[in-house]
Formats: sequence, C-alpha cells, structure tokens
Amino acid sequence: MIQVNFTPRVELDKIEKIVEEIKSDSMGGWADLPLKLSTLKLQKIQEVAEKIRKESDVVVMVGIGGSYLGHRAVIEALKPHAGIEMVYIGNSLSRRDLEFNLRKIQNRDFSVIVISKSGTTLEPARAFETVKQKLAERYGVVGAIKRIYAITDARKGVLHDEAVRDNYTRFVVPDNVGGRYSVLSPVGLLPMAVAGIKVEELLRGAAEMAENVDETFLGSENAERKHEVSSAIKYAVMRNLLQNKGYDTEVFATFEPATAYFNEWIKQLFGESEGKNLQGVFPASAVYSTDLHSLGQFMQDGRRNLWETIINYPTDETNAKVVEAVQKAHIKGRIPVLKIDVSTYDERGFGELIYFFEMACAISAKLAGVNPFDQPGVEAYKEELKNLLQK
Amino acid sequence: MIQVNFTPRVELDKIEKIVEEIKSDSMGGWADLPLKLSTLKLQKIQEVAEKIRKESDVVVMVGIGGSYLGHRAVIEALKPHAGIEMVYIGNSLSRRDLEFNLRKIQNRDFSVIVISKSGTTLEPARAFETVKQKLAERYGVVGAIKRIYAITDARKGVLHDEAVRDNYTRFVVPDNVGGRYSVLSPVGLLPMAVAGIKVEELLRGAAEMAENVDETFLGSENAERKHEVSSAIKYAVMRNLLQNKGYDTEVFATFEPATAYFNEWIKQLFGESEGKNLQGVFPASAVYSTDLHSLGQFMQDGRRNLWETIINYPTDETNAKVVEAVQKAHIKGRIPVLKIDVSTYDERGFGELIYFFEMACAISAKLAGVNPFDQPGVEAYKEELKNLLQK
Repeated sequence: MIQVNFTPRVELDKIEKIVEEIKSDSMGGWADLPLKLSTLKLQKIQEVAEKIRKESDVVVMVGIGGSYLGHRAVIEALKPHAGIEMVYIGNSLSRRDLEFNLRKIQNRDFSVIVISKSGTTLEPARAFETVKQKLAERYGVVGAIKRIYAITDARKGVLHDEAVRDNYTRFVVPDNVGGRYSVLSPVGLLPMAVAGIKVEELLRGAAEMAENVDETFLGSENAERKHEVSSAIKYAVMRNLLQNKGYDTEVFATFEPATAYFNEWIKQLFGESEGKNLQGVFPASAVYSTDLHSLGQFMQDGRRNLWETIINYPTDETNAKVVEAVQKAHIKGRIPVLKIDVSTYDERGFGELIYFFEMACAISAKLAGVNPFDQPGVEAYKEELKNLLQK
Repeated sequence: MIQVNFTPRVELDKIEKIVEEIKSDSMGGWADLPLKLSTLKLQKIQEVAEKIRKESDVVVMVGIGGSYLGHRAVIEALKPHAGIEMVYIGNSLSRRDLEFNLRKIQNRDFSVIVISKSGTTLEPARAFETVKQKLAERYGVVGAIKRIYAITDARKGVLHDEAVRDNYTRFVVPDNVGGRYSVLSPVGLLPMAVAGIKVEELLRGAAEMAENVDETFLGSENAERKHEVSSAIKYAVMRNLLQNKGYDTEVFATFEPATAYFNEWIKQLFGESEGKNLQGVFPASAVYSTDLHSLGQFMQDGRRNLWETIINYPTDETNAKVVEAVQKAHIKGRIPVLKIDVSTYDERGFGELIYFFEMACAISAKLAGVNPFDQPGVEAYKEELKNLLQK
C-alpha cells in the first residue's frame, strides 16, 4: 500500500462527509469503478483486445484529454512486450503531427480505437475521418468496419450513432464518469489490454486503495476509529494546508523517466479539477535526473512559492540515494518535500496510484471549495473555436 | 525572421550594454557560435555523421541536461528520415530506464556518442560504462573503440583522458560555452547531423537571428537608430515587465506536439539561467490541444499569476484558427498572451528560434539582476549525492 512521509491532523468527520458527497455526486461514478466492473465486461475487453492484437502490428488510438492520457501513461510506464505498437492521434489539430504518426502504419497491419463521448470534439473527429479513409484504402469499406472499435456514449451522440449504423464493436463511456477520471473504465482498460497491460491486476490495485480509503472511516463519529488514515486522505489534507499557507505551485517529481506521461496525467487531473474560480495550485512535472540539471536550479534557489511532491517508485540502491540526496538538498533550500512511496512498479502499483491521486484530487478540490468534476474554462475555448470556424 | 505581437518601450542604450556584457562574459561564447564555426569543423562533423549512419541502425546518445535536450528537441521536432534511430541514455540513474532503452540495440548495429565535459557526472558516466560493455560484447574491444565518439573538454577530464588513450573519435565542448547554451556547438551539431538534420541550415537561421540582434544597435547613442528592434530584445524586455508586475509563471504553449521537447529545452534554459537568488519566473510547458483539455482549464479560470507565451509555428488554416481561438479565450480570461511567430518549420526556423531564446534568456536574466551562466543550485544536489554515495 502507498506510504507517505507526513501526517497532518485530519478532521475525520469532515473528510468522511466530503467522501460521501464525492461518491454520491452525479459524476462520482469513478470511485466505484474498481469494485464494480463485472467479470463479464472485463472478459469482453480482454477478448476484443486479443483479437486486435492478432490482427494488427499497430493500433491507432484516437482520443484527446481524458480519453487519452490515462492509458498512455500506464502503457509508457510499464512498456509491456505485446508485440504491438500504439500510435496516438486526434490530440491536436496539427496536420504535421498526424502525418508523422501515420508514417507508422505504412506497410503494417493496423486497427483503430476511437474514444469520444460525443463524437463532436473537433480534434479526434478530424483525425478519425483521416484514419478511416486510410483503413478503407487498405482493407476496403467492409474490411475497415471490422477494424474500428468505438468507446462512446451508451445511447446518443454522433459517434454512437455511426457505430450503431456501421456495426463497429462498441464499448461504453459511463454517464457518471468524467474524462479525467475515466482510466479505470473501458476508456482506459481496452487500450491497456491491447498493449498487454494486465488490467485485472491494475483494477485489483485500485480496489485495494479504494478499500484503504473506506476503512479510514470504520468506527463512528463517537466511537474510536479503527484504522490508520489512508495515505490518499493525508495527502489531500497536506496539500490543502500548503495551499492555505500560500504555496501555489506543486512540482510532481519522478526519478523514472518512463513515468513522464503518468505525470502528465496527474497534471491534467489536478489542473482541470482545481484550476477554477481564480484559484488552484499550478501543477508542474519534473523528470529527474534530467530536470535536476534544469528546473533543479529553480527548485534549489528560485522563488519559494512551490512545493515538491516526489513520487517515489521502488528502485535500486543507487537511484534511491539520488532520491535521498534531492530530498535533502531541496529541504535545505527550504522547499516543502512530500514523498509518496509507491509499493510496486507493476500493474498493481499503478492501480493503487491512480485511485490514490483521483481520490486525493477530488477531496483537495472540495477542501478548496471548488467542484472537482466540471471544466467551465475548457468550454470557453471550444466556444471561441466554434465561432471562428463558423465565420 | 521571427515576429512578435508586442512592442514594449526599449531602453536601447541599456540593452546594448547588456548585450556587450553577455558577449564578453567568459561563458558568452555561445553568442558567436553560429557566425564563427569554421567550414573545416563543420565538414568533419558531417563526415563523421555519415560514417556513423553507414555503420549503424541505432545511435546510443549518452548525455544529460545541456548535453542532451537541445539536439533531441530539434530531432524530435523535424523527424528527419535518415533511417537511423536515436536512443537517449544517461539522463537518469534508473536501471529500469536503461534496460527499456537498451532493448532497442538488440539485433541491430549500433554506435555510441558520449557527451560530457568532465566525464565525472554520475548519470552519464554509469550509462556509458554499461553501453561500452555491450559494445565490447558485440564488436570486441577493438571494434568497440571504433564505434565510440566522445564530445568532451579539449584538454582535460576523465572522458578526455580515456578518449585520448583509447583513440576515440573526439570533438570539443568549447570552454566558453555552458551546457544549456551548447546546442550550436559540436554537442548538438554531431547528433543532429547523424539524425539527418541539415545543420548548415540550422546555423544559417541562427546566424540570421544573431545579425538581427546586432543590427538593432547600428547607429549610435546620439544618432538615430537605423533598424527595428530585434524581436529577441522585445521579448526579453516584455517578460521583464511582466515579472516586475508580479507575474511569476510563464507557460510556453505550442500547437505542434512534435515540439514538446523543444519546450523542455526552453524550460531548462530559463529555469537554470534565472531561478536563483530566490527569484525567477517558473517555466512551464503546455502542448495543445491536449493541454487545452487539462491545463487549459487552469489557464482560463485559475490563479491569475501566470502569462502565456505562444510559440506559433507556421501551420494550416484550421490549426491557425485554434491558435486564434485560444488567444482570444485566454485574453478574455485576463491572462497576458505573448505570441512569437516562427517563420518556417524547418532547420532554418529552429536555428532562428534557438538563438532567439538564448539571447532573450541571457538579456532577461541580466535585467533581473542574476547571472545567466552559473548554476549554484545544481551543485548543491550533486554535493548531497556525493556525500551519500561515499558513506
């Protein structure tokens, strides 16, 4: 189980109410995903993943934001040997980027997984159109359809309607789960299973973390609490304390370069959940040792408005010394250092970590008085873009 | 030439003095690199690059910090088709990362370029030991030596001495150029040439930018200035104004995912140059559209202590609309948006951009009253690490 190096005073009754509010929120469905996914659904995911792997050298993933970062983060971190390459498109409008990525399907068999709740988000919609053409050129219209897998709304939307009409293999984005909290739903599970990630182990780790949070509240307001406070709760409370003291930037530091994308997922989770009402802690990523030779200078001697959260993956002795050295140097430089010790570098460990950050983020946002599940600012840019394109 | 969308009032005489100081600094040699590299040296770089390409499917690059980010940034952005894969090691102490990367040399011919001024920095030194063993296993001791290329100090240091003893092909890290300003020296030029980057075009772009800066000062203090103020100077002055107004975080935004590493290079340049004396602007990177669906929320509605610097690469019409939409939305959200228009997406454009940021960074640091060329904080962590490892 995840350990942390700090023990803030926790008002348990207050936190218990917050967790209840989170779980009963109309967008709180993510909190139960690891415990409630049926064996039947998981089996379908694994069968389809097996079929895709058999038929493809490359899988083209179409998605953006929450439909993209979570599974990529786990796949890049664990780099399973499944003999299949994942290519990610639809996360920008750059034609240049699309061309760079589609070089990889030349002379190789490929399938397409498209993830979009509505089907109308411009970036993935455009990329999907392009790759559908490529599929049709290679495999014919009928052959193409058999290589398209859609993860979308259960009942409505452009992508849903097309998937039903053309009979794509379909999976559902649950109604009560938002993009940035969706990695333990089919949105994340299918791509990960295709890449060779042991998704049942990932879910097991997440479920253990979910239980760890729930156990915190065993006992009652008046009777003695029976379990240690979950590390996810300690972390949420600690970062709220730091925020209230005026620290306004959190640097997520990793010593495993393969987890750089996992940091991107964390940045998205916190940035989109907390950055509203003109407040929020600015989330930044540091990948050490590289960034010790760059941002490290800033961490050591620059402005003192930031704190560092080290995600400490299990490692060998020398790398552990580096972690210790950095911690010591930065504490001497008078920046707060929170350390999160991950139990294992495998599916189970990342499952724990995903749930840890999701729950900590939701609690943090609530403590700061903002809604963890909306994103009004993202809509503002979508609106501007729609106006410009209509001109 | 690079254009910017702002025209701050520039005290030209003051800036002229600063630029003179920079160029006469003992670490100011980078400012003349694009103008002074001899044809002979460039020819040697290209001949060696050609030889490496002929003999290798993969080139293992050993380096960290400034010996690493610059060339990788340009190679990832332009993705030349040179039929050779670049693999980067020695930028962390993670054994896991080393193993992930060395998978790529299995059953493929490879050579090694090692970049270290001293040869004693722990991360690259360790990785170099490992990959040397792999070379010897594959090609024998004599064969291995012929496949090692060292870029190091001209006269002294562990790597220099080993390279002389074992007769590696050698290139020099100039004495008067620091790591983070070294990309236009052999440190960056050899790896880029190997990857198929047209380095003479890159140098040409950089030289044009250098001339553009110098031309600003034509005329004299008393006579009229004859040329427009260089965009690099405008940008340095503008960010100093923002810093003085209390903005403390700069988000470098790109709409080209392939330039994500170029943003990392920029972060290193500014973070290590300015983050000292308990001051500095915190440098962060945003890769759009992905980050519009994540940090975008924070940009739109979060704390108002940040500004955005859009690096606007030439693009097609739709992507240009996205740039415009984001700019409008963020200005409505009351964050300052600086826009840097890059002239061409090729070697020449990136050459301009490299010199633009190097010069702007050096001027900015001087305006903020810090030394752009030292890194006392990085030494603090190296010291802690040395102590721990000696125990």
